[in-house]
Amino acid sequence: MQIFNHPDKSTWPLLCTRPSFDYAALENVVAPILADIKTNGDVAVKKYAAQFDKVTLHQLSVNAEEIDAAAALVPEDLKAAITQAAANIRLFHEAQKEKIQYIETMPGVQCWRKSVAINDVGLYIPGGTAPLFSTLLMLGIPAQIAGCSNILLCTPSNADGQINAAVLFTAQLLGLKNIFKIGGVQAIGAMAYGTAAVPKVSKIFGPGNQYVTAAKQMVSRQGTAIDMPAGPSELAVYADETAIPAFVAADLLSQAEHGVDSQVMLVASSEKMLLDIQEQVQLQLVNLPRKDIAEAALTHSRYVILSTTKLAFDFLNTYAPEHLIIASDAALPLSELVQNAGSIFLGNYSPESAGDYATGTNHTLPTNGYAKAYSGVSVDSFVKKITFQQLTQAGLEGIADTVELMAAAEGLEAHRHAVAIRRKF
Amino acid sequence: MQIFNHPDKSTWPLLCTRPSFDYAALENVVAPILADIKTNGDVAVKKYAAQFDKVTLHQLSVNAEEIDAAAALVPEDLKAAITQAAANIRLFHEAQKEKIQYIETMPGVQCWRKSVAINDVGLYIPGGTAPLFSTLLMLGIPAQIAGCSNILLCTPSNADGQINAAVLFTAQLLGLKNIFKIGGVQAIGAMAYGTAAVPKVSKIFGPGNQYVTAAKQMVSRQGTAIDMPAGPSELAVYADETAIPAFVAADLLSQAEHGVDSQVMLVASSEKMLLDIQEQVQLQLVNLPRKDIAEAALTHSRYVILSTTKLAFDFLNTYAPEHLIIASDAALPLSELVQNAGSIFLGNYSPESAGDYATGTNHTLPTNGYAKAYSGVSVDSFVKKITFQQLTQAGLEGIADTVELMAAAEGLEAHRHAVAIRRKF
Repeated sequence: MQIFNHPDKSTWPLLCTRPSFDYAALENVVAPILADIKTNGDVAVKKYAAQFDKVTLHQLSVNAEEIDAAAALVPEDLKAAITQAAANIRLFHEAQKEKIQYIETMPGVQCWRKSVAINDVGLYIPGGTAPLFSTLLMLGIPAQIAGCSNILLCTPSNADGQINAAVLFTAQLLGLKNIFKIGGVQAIGAMAYGTAAVPKVSKIFGPGNQYVTAAKQMVSRQGTAIDMPAGPSELAVYADETAIPAFVAADLLSQAEHGVDSQVMLVASSEKMLLDIQEQVQLQLVNLPRKDIAEAALTHSRYVILSTTKLAFDFLNTYAPEHLIIASDAALPLSELVQNAGSIFLGNYSPESAGDYATGTNHTLPTNGYAKAYSGVSVDSFVKKITFQQLTQAGLEGIADTVELMAAAEGLEAHRHAVAIRRKF
Repeated sequence: MQIFNHPDKSTWPLLCTRPSFDYAALENVVAPILADIKTNGDVAVKKYAAQFDKVTLHQLSVNAEEIDAAAALVPEDLKAAITQAAANIRLFHEAQKEKIQYIETMPGVQCWRKSVAINDVGLYIPGGTAPLFSTLLMLGIPAQIAGCSNILLCTPSNADGQINAAVLFTAQLLGLKNIFKIGGVQAIGAMAYGTAAVPKVSKIFGPGNQYVTAAKQMVSRQGTAIDMPAGPSELAVYADETAIPAFVAADLLSQAEHGVDSQVMLVASSEKMLLDIQEQVQLQLVNLPRKDIAEAALTHSRYVILSTTKLAFDFLNTYAPEHLIIASDAALPLSELVQNAGSIFLGNYSPESAGDYATGTNHTLPTNGYAKAYSGVSVDSFVKKITFQQLTQAGLEGIADTVELMAAAEGLEAHRHAVAIRRKF
């Protein structure tokens, strides 16, 4: 890790850069696969499953027996944990449902906004080394609260055609029925274009490798919405003199183990705190099963000393982290200084991993500096907010001069006339 | 216009296609301009202003004297109209501010979500034949309600270096100070990358021609957020036997006059109503100053007869119009059938142009079928919704088994350990 002692503001943009990635090059790989799926549907999906995932798929959909059998394999304590997490996530996201407010902007001019579910949504859950059943909770629960009618799940099987048991148990817990054992670019293509087996969706959610990310970006330019632009996961920790170095070190490592491209940023208020944390990182690192991944991630991680809270939070706002832990007894007032972050963890007993799984907040969050302008996934992500207006004849008369004058000034005579003709009537 | 009598469902996707546009070809034109602006800043901006807008710009920013002088040119009745519209828009959008709800998902586990303004936003208002000061209201007011600190406005000047007076009056009314006389691709590039004169923004809003649209799409892949993908404006009208043909015709024409690529869709419950409307369209068309534009737009517009409300609204949901007028005495109950639309106008006295200017709802809405998954601009568009969690030591203990079990099952030991280390402490 690199240490920066009171870096000058002019160096901040460089310190805040993320590992960059050439998606254009990937698009050249992904484009022909997407085109093939668009043209040849399930045949192409199965072909790439054989080629990339080494699996021969006779049927793409997962049947009820498979779900039951898989769910039976999940230990009871893990089932209870997933059920508890689901309850917290549901409780937190239920509050995001928006009630209709009817607003009479002028007498007889009634306006309101109604959240209407996106009918058809597709959730992608990667397989591989870390089967992210937790992400299925984070996407499936807000989709259900929003009222989406068709919630599709695509997730790859192993070479034997089996899907991770905890993922299927989670799907069963949520009552999801449209499940397909399709992974990677194939899954994104199948959901974006639709195939004989897989219905077309309007919006695709979920994480994935760089090929999946590139595929999502490409279909988003062809009319399918996506949750947000993706990048490697990242964590920033602010640690003042009241932080507990062993805790902070554990948090930094929990981020570093995600992948070699994960980024970890520590902003400490003193050199002593920084060095204490660094020592703890080295101590804890040796015991990790994913030590090699974490170590690689740490090589491009940055430790920064900034002694005033003003400078520290200006820097953190420049970085705009996906996750921000404020390791301080004064976390709550300090959090008022945050302009840009995906999710914030306050104090010494709020580790990121608690939020990753079970506090109830969503863990699908903006990375790569997107926290300056994007929000994490929420019930909002699964609805459109449609506006309505209903005018009485008197209401229109009250607003008519205003509309006619503005339309005329913008040179739009037919706009003006649409009001004028109703006044004469 | 083309008439379709009870079209079969299998033909609906074709009937609902929009005029397509090859943005890839445009990107080849736009990319070098953006790259030049990124490298050469204001020099490049001025070069392209001279080349495309035939204007020699010595200074890019608009000073207070220019604003005052322009505002003095605006007739008092138009000033009053803009002020009235602004009040309605403010009233409607104020209600979109989200109060923080603190939710204790488990004892000692407190979670909440806070809307935080996107600091730096850029508004683009095109010049040309229709100076859209109304769009400045629609973007500037929610930005102010959201609390954005830096609101930039870019709008092109004429060949004499002057900006439309009503646009500058509207900016003055809103109290906007950072105004630049920059148009087209130059404006998008300057705001996305920042120049010596123009501060870099995090999100760009506003309409524009196809070059502007392509430039927005390109910078959105480079880290600058944009309001939404854009396409030509469009209107669908549902007219049952209680519709008033002259009103519907006026509404169809108000959409058709926007541009030759505008799309107009009429869904009528009977052939008689359709023919009556068609007759009115022909009658009203002859008097329009923008007759040629409207006529061209009408050639690719579609008139559909569907005699059951179920079929009609299934069709409209397939089309997913930007604007939907329900010209019926039963508009409110019928609106319950709408799944996909940007903004809905209920009944015979709610013309689209009322909402375009002054009902209070926003007129920046999803086109091109994006209403299936996207919302129009609102205060939401100018904020990030940051989540927070604060756990007490007891709160963490209560959730700890759940997190540890889930992390272990996902193979993320360092995630588990970040909780475990806090339990031992």
